[in-house]
Amino acid sequence: MKDHELERKLDPHRAVLVRRIAMDAKLSSLNVGGALQDLPVGPSLDYGRVHGANCEIVVGYVPLPVGIVGPLTLNGASVYIPMATTEGCLVASTQRGAKAISQGSGAAAVILRDGITRAPCVRMRSAMEAAELKLWCEAPANFAMLKEAFESTTSFGKLKGCNPTVAGRNVYLRLVCFSGDAMGMNMVSKGSLAVIDLLRLKFPSLTLVALSGNMCTDKKAAATNWLEGRGKSVVVEATIPKDVVRSTLKTTVKAVVDTNLNKNLIGSAMAGVIGGFNAHASNIVSAVFLATGQDPAQNVESSNCITLMEETPEGDLWISCTMPSI
Amino acid sequence: MKDHELERKLDPHRAVLVRRIAMDAKLSSLNVGGALQDLPVGPSLDYGRVHGANCEIVVGYVPLPVGIVGPLTLNGASVYIPMATTEGCLVASTQRGAKAISQGSGAAAVILRDGITRAPCVRMRSAMEAAELKLWCEAPANFAMLKEAFESTTSFGKLKGCNPTVAGRNVYLRLVCFSGDAMGMNMVSKGSLAVIDLLRLKFPSLTLVALSGNMCTDKKAAATNWLEGRGKSVVVEATIPKDVVRSTLKTTVKAVVDTNLNKNLIGSAMAGVIGGFNAHASNIVSAVFLATGQDPAQNVESSNCITLMEETPEGDLWISCTMPSI
Amino acid sequence: MKDHELERKLDPHRAVLVRRIAMDAKLSSLNVGGALQDLPVGPSLDYGRVHGANCEIVVGYVPLPVGIVGPLTLNGASVYIPMATTEGCLVASTQRGAKAISQGSGAAAVILRDGITRAPCVRMRSAMEAAELKLWCEAPANFAMLKEAFESTTSFGKLKGCNPTVAGRNVYLRLVCFSGDAMGMNMVSKGSLAVIDLLRLKFPSLTLVALSGNMCTDKKAAATNWLEGRGKSVVVEATIPKDVVRSTLKTTVKAVVDTNLNKNLIGSAMAGVIGGFNAHASNIVSAVFLATGQDPAQNVESSNCITLMEETPEGDLWISCTMPSI
Amino acid sequence: MKDHELERKLDPHRAVLVRRIAMDAKLSSLNVGGALQDLPVGPSLDYGRVHGANCEIVVGYVPLPVGIVGPLTLNGASVYIPMATTEGCLVASTQRGAKAISQGSGAAAVILRDGITRAPCVRMRSAMEAAELKLWCEAPANFAMLKEAFESTTSFGKLKGCNPTVAGRNVYLRLVCFSGDAMGMNMVSKGSLAVIDLLRLKFPSLTLVALSGNMCTDKKAAATNWLEGRGKSVVVEATIPKDVVRSTLKTTVKAVVDTNLNKNLIGSAMAGVIGGFNAHASNIVSAVFLATGQDPAQNVESSNCITLMEETPEGDLWISCTMPSI
Repeated sequence: MKDHELERKLDPHRAVLVRRIAMDAKLSSLNVGGALQDLPVGPSLDYGRVHGANCEIVVGYVPLPVGIVGPLTLNGASVYIPMATTEGCLVASTQRGAKAISQGSGAAAVILRDGITRAPCVRMRSAMEAAELKLWCEAPANFAMLKEAFESTTSFGKLKGCNPTVAGRNVYLRLVCFSGDAMGMNMVSKGSLAVIDLLRLKFPSLTLVALSGNMCTDKKAAATNWLEGRGKSVVVEATIPKDVVRSTLKTTVKAVVDTNLNKNLIGSAMAGVIGGFNAHASNIVSAVFLATGQDPAQNVESSNCITLMEETPEGDLWISCTMPSI
Repeated sequence: MKDHELERKLDPHRAVLVRRIAMDAKLSSLNVGGALQDLPVGPSLDYGRVHGANCEIVVGYVPLPVGIVGPLTLNGASVYIPMATTEGCLVASTQRGAKAISQGSGAAAVILRDGITRAPCVRMRSAMEAAELKLWCEAPANFAMLKEAFESTTSFGKLKGCNPTVAGRNVYLRLVCFSGDAMGMNMVSKGSLAVIDLLRLKFPSLTLVALSGNMCTDKKAAATNWLEGRGKSVVVEATIPKDVVRSTLKTTVKAVVDTNLNKNLIGSAMAGVIGGFNAHASNIVSAVFLATGQDPAQNVESSNCITLMEETPEGDLWISCTMPSI
Repeated sequence: MKDHELERKLDPHRAVLVRRIAMDAKLSSLNVGGALQDLPVGPSLDYGRVHGANCEIVVGYVPLPVGIVGPLTLNGASVYIPMATTEGCLVASTQRGAKAISQGSGAAAVILRDGITRAPCVRMRSAMEAAELKLWCEAPANFAMLKEAFESTTSFGKLKGCNPTVAGRNVYLRLVCFSGDAMGMNMVSKGSLAVIDLLRLKFPSLTLVALSGNMCTDKKAAATNWLEGRGKSVVVEATIPKDVVRSTLKTTVKAVVDTNLNKNLIGSAMAGVIGGFNAHASNIVSAVFLATGQDPAQNVESSNCITLMEETPEGDLWISCTMPSI
Repeated sequence: MKDHELERKLDPHRAVLVRRIAMDAKLSSLNVGGALQDLPVGPSLDYGRVHGANCEIVVGYVPLPVGIVGPLTLNGASVYIPMATTEGCLVASTQRGAKAISQGSGAAAVILRDGITRAPCVRMRSAMEAAELKLWCEAPANFAMLKEAFESTTSFGKLKGCNPTVAGRNVYLRLVCFSGDAMGMNMVSKGSLAVIDLLRLKFPSLTLVALSGNMCTDKKAAATNWLEGRGKSVVVEATIPKDVVRSTLKTTVKAVVDTNLNKNLIGSAMAGVIGGFNAHASNIVSAVFLATGQDPAQNVESSNCITLMEETPEGDLWISCTMPSI
C-alpha cells in the first residue's frame, strides 16, 4: 500500500498508526530506530481534521506548551494572550511586561493600514510594453475594472490597490486586498488570477511568470513590507510610571531608554537591519502565532518592529512599538 | 494562591489543571469563556519537564501535526526529515522535491562555516577609547587572552573570533563561538560575560550596555547574518534529470530556471530583500525547527537563502541553496 | 577684513585673488605652502555669478574635463551626452556602448514616475495622535486641502501625493511633488512648509522636528527611493545584434548575459545591496551630473539601477536598465 | 579624420579645438547648436596630461568653484579642507561647523581599518568544489601563498585578507589590500589577477567570470561596505561647548540631539537605509573628492556614515561620525 493510500483506505487515526509502524521500520534500517518514540501519536489530535487540510504523511504531533499572559489593559479592556513556546522565561517575562503596562494606564493600539498582498510577476515583450502596462493599471478607470474582476472572486475581499513595479520587461503587480480578520492569502491569490485574466485580454502578449513574484513579499525579509506594510500595520504605546519601572521591571527609566537607543536603534543600524529595530519581537510574534493557529513561517515579516522609548517630562517611561507588517 | 505558587505547591499536572480552571473563570468574566476548550491539557505533555525549563503559566498545549519527508538521498545516505506544520500541502510538496532529488543522484551538502554569535554592546568614554578597545581586541596576543577567558566558562565551546565594530563611543563585540551540535546561545552568553569581565580589567572605564547589542543578530533581519554567517552556514546542491523534472515536478527545466530568475532573483531584488532570494525557505525551516525542538523565532535569520538554478549542458536541472545562517 | 566681507568690498574676481593670497600665507605657516598652485583661478569662472549662489570662501576652480558621447539613437532621435570626469576610459567605453546600441535599432526610454520628495518629520503628543494625523492626511478631502496649501507657494509645482509613515509618536510625511524639468528641492521644501503650517492649524500639538526627516531620502542609500522612486523613474532598453556584440563589444551574447547574472544579480545579492544591481551606473550618472550642473552628491540615490540582459530568440542581446530614482 | 586620430595627429589643445568645432556642427544639425558655448575650452586645462589618462573625446572643461574651509582643529593640528561644489551654502555651513568644533577642543579622528577591496567572481563545476575552494583559501598556509602571489605584482600593496563567499557554484573572493595613501584600485586589480592565476593551478576547473564580482562593492550601496569596511574606516568625534552651540550654531544642545535621534536614526531606520544614518555626508564627501581629484562616483559607498550625538554631563554637545568605507 502506498503512503498516500493510507488515509483513503483506513480511518485517519489508524492510518497514522500504520504509517508510524512502517516509518519506525525504515528508521531502524537506517540505525535511527526509536527516533519517534517521544513523539505522541494520540489522543490530542483529530487526524480526520488534519488530513487534507493541515499536514501530510503524518506520524504524530508535537505538543507545544501554551502559557497565558494577562490581564493586559489594552484600549481600556482586559485581554489575555496565549503563547505557545518552549523557550523558558519567555512567557514569564512577557507577563512581567504586561503587568507593568497594566499597572500604568494600559496600552493603546490602533491599526494604521490593513491589507494582505500578492504580487504576480508578468512579462511583456519589451520594457516599453511593461511601462505601458504599468501606466494602464494606474489609470483610475482601469483600476476600477481590475477591482471589479478581483472582487468577482470573493464575497468579502476588497481590492484596495495595485502597485506595479517595472524591472526591464517584467512587471510585478503588488495587489493589496482588504481581507478583514482572515489572513487572506487564498482570497488574494484567487483574485489576483482574475486580475491577470483581465489584463491578458487587454495585453495579449502578457505572460504570467509566477503568481507570487516575490514583491508580495511573503516570508522573506524585504524592505517592501517594512515600507509599504503587509497584513495589519499597527502602532501601540504605553506609559509606565517610574515607580513601576523600578518595582516591576527592576530597572530605571534612564537605563532602559539608554539601552533601547544603543541596542535597538544604533546596534541594529550597525548590523544592517531592515525593520529589526527591536529586541526580540520575533519571540512573541512566533509564540502568539503558534498558539492561535497562524503560520509561524510568516514571522519573518510579521516581527518587523521598531521599539521607541522616551523619558516623559514627569520622569516616566513612554514606550511604543510600530509594526507595519503583522 | 498566586499563579507562580501553583507549581510549588501542587504536582505539575495538577497545577496546570487548577490554573486552567481559574483562567476559564477569568475569561468567562470577559465574555470569552470557552476559549480554551479546544486546547488539550493532557496526556501528551510531561508538565514536570516543562516547568522551570520551557514555558510558564501553562494551561495546556497545542498539538502540532508532524509529517515525515523521505527518503532523501543526502551525501550518499538516506535521510528522513520531520516537519511540524499546519500548512496544508507543505509536507506533500517537500516530499515531491525530496523524491525528485533522490530520483537523480541525490543532494550533496557541506558546512561552510560554523559559529554561534553574541555581540555585547559596551560604551567607552570617547570614540578614541572605543577605537583603542577595537584595536586591542584585534591584536593576536590579546585575542588569545579573550579566548582563554571565554573558554574557561565552558568545557566544550571554542571562541573562534571577536569582531569589534565601533559606532561613536560604542563598541559592538561580535563574538563567534563554535558550539558543535548545540545551538549554543547560553554557552556564548556565559563566555561573553567572561570576555567583558576581562576587558573591564584592561579598560576600567568600559560599561556594559547590553549583553546582546543587536549585532549578533538574533531574530532580526540583518545583513550581518547574511554576510558573516550565524550558526551553521551551508550550501547544498542537486542535479535533477530532465525526465524527472517532467514526470515528478510536472514542469520543464527551462520554465523552472526562468521562474527562479524572475521571481527569486529579480523579484526579490526589486523588493529590497536582504538574504531572501528564495521562494519559501521559511516554511521548511520553521517546520523542521518545530519538529526538532529548535526555536521557531529564529527562522527570521535561519531562513536566509539564495536559490540558484541552471540548465546543465545535458539539459538537466542543477539547483542549489546557500544558507549562511541556519 | 573678515573673509565674508571680501565680496562685499571688492569686485568678485579680485575678492578671490585677495582670499587666495591670504590662504596661501596661512597654508605656508602650516608648511603646506604651494598647495593651491595647481588650482586655476581664472579666467574660466565668472565669480560674480558664483558668489551668493554656488560656493563660498572661493579660491579658484577645478577644471573638470568634459567628453562627449554620441550620437546615441534614443527614442528615434540622435543625442549627444556630455560627461565630466577624470576617470580614464569611462567616456571611451560609454562611447563604445552608445555605438553598439546605435548600430542596432537604438534605445527606447520612458519615464515611469516623476516626482521629487521631501519628508518632514513631525512629532505628536502620542502615538494615537500620530495615527490620527496619518489617517487625516489620507482622507481625499484633506489631501485636497494639503495640495492647495502646497501649490499656493509655487506657480509650477504640483503636489502628487502625501505618504505618512508613523514611528511611535513621530510622523514622516513623504510629500511627492511634480517639478517638471527643475530638480525641485527648493520648490518642494517651500511647499512642505505650507503643508506643515496648515497641519498645525488642525493639530495644534504638532511640532516640526525637521523639514527633512530622512524619509525623502536625499543623498543616502535607502530602500524608500528604490521602491517608491524619487525624481524621475525611468526604464530604458535596447537590442544589440549579435554581430555588433562581437565586432563592437568584443564579446559574445552568452558571455555578457552570464556575467550580468553572476555579477550584477547574484554578486550584488550576496553583497547585501539595495538598488545596486548594476556594474557601475554611478560612474555615468556622476559624470553626466557634473557636466550638466546637477548635484553629484545625489548620485547616491540617482545611480540606483538594475541591469537586465537576455539572449533573444534570434540570438541577439536584449539589455535594459531600470532606474527608479534619478 | 576619425575622432580618436585627433590627438595622434594634432597637439592636444588643438585636437580639442578641432573636435569642438566638429561637435558644434553636429549639434547644430540637431538644432542644439550653441550648447557648448558656456563650456570653457582654455586655458586652465593641460590637455596633454588629460589625454590618455583622464578623459576621452574632450571638448572643454567644467570649472567647478573651490572653497576652503578651516582652520579646523583636528588631532591637535590646524587643517584646511578644500571643497569643490556648486551647491550654495554648503561651504559656508561646513565652515560654521569647523568653527564651532575648533572653538571647543577640536576634533579627534582615528583610522579603524584600512584596505581597498576587489572581489573576483569565479565559478567551479559544483557547489561542493566551490566549498572546497573556500576552505582551501581560508587555510593559513594557503593564504600565505595567495599573499605572495598578490604581492609579487606590487612593490607597495599588502594583501591583508581573502574572504570567500560561496553562492551555489560561484565563489566571490573579497581580497583586501593595504594600499597606503593610494586609492589602490589598479593595484588590487593587478594583484587579484595574480591570485586567480595561482588558484587556477590548484583548481584547474575554475573559471573567472568577472574580476569584479560586485562583492567589492564598488559604487553601489551595499551592506558589505557598511559592515566590513572598504578603503579607510574612520571615527571622528568632538565636544562642542554649549555656549558655542548657542552662539555659533544658533541652536541648543537638546534640540540638536533630539533632531539627530528623530531624523538621522529613526527617520533613516524607517526609510530602510543601509549605512545612511546621517544628514548629508554625501555633500561633503563629494565636494572634498572633487577638490582633491578623488572619484566622485565612489561617494555612493564613501558617504556611509552614522552620526551620533549626546548631551554630556556638563550640558555640552558630544558628536561623532563613524564612516567605515571612505
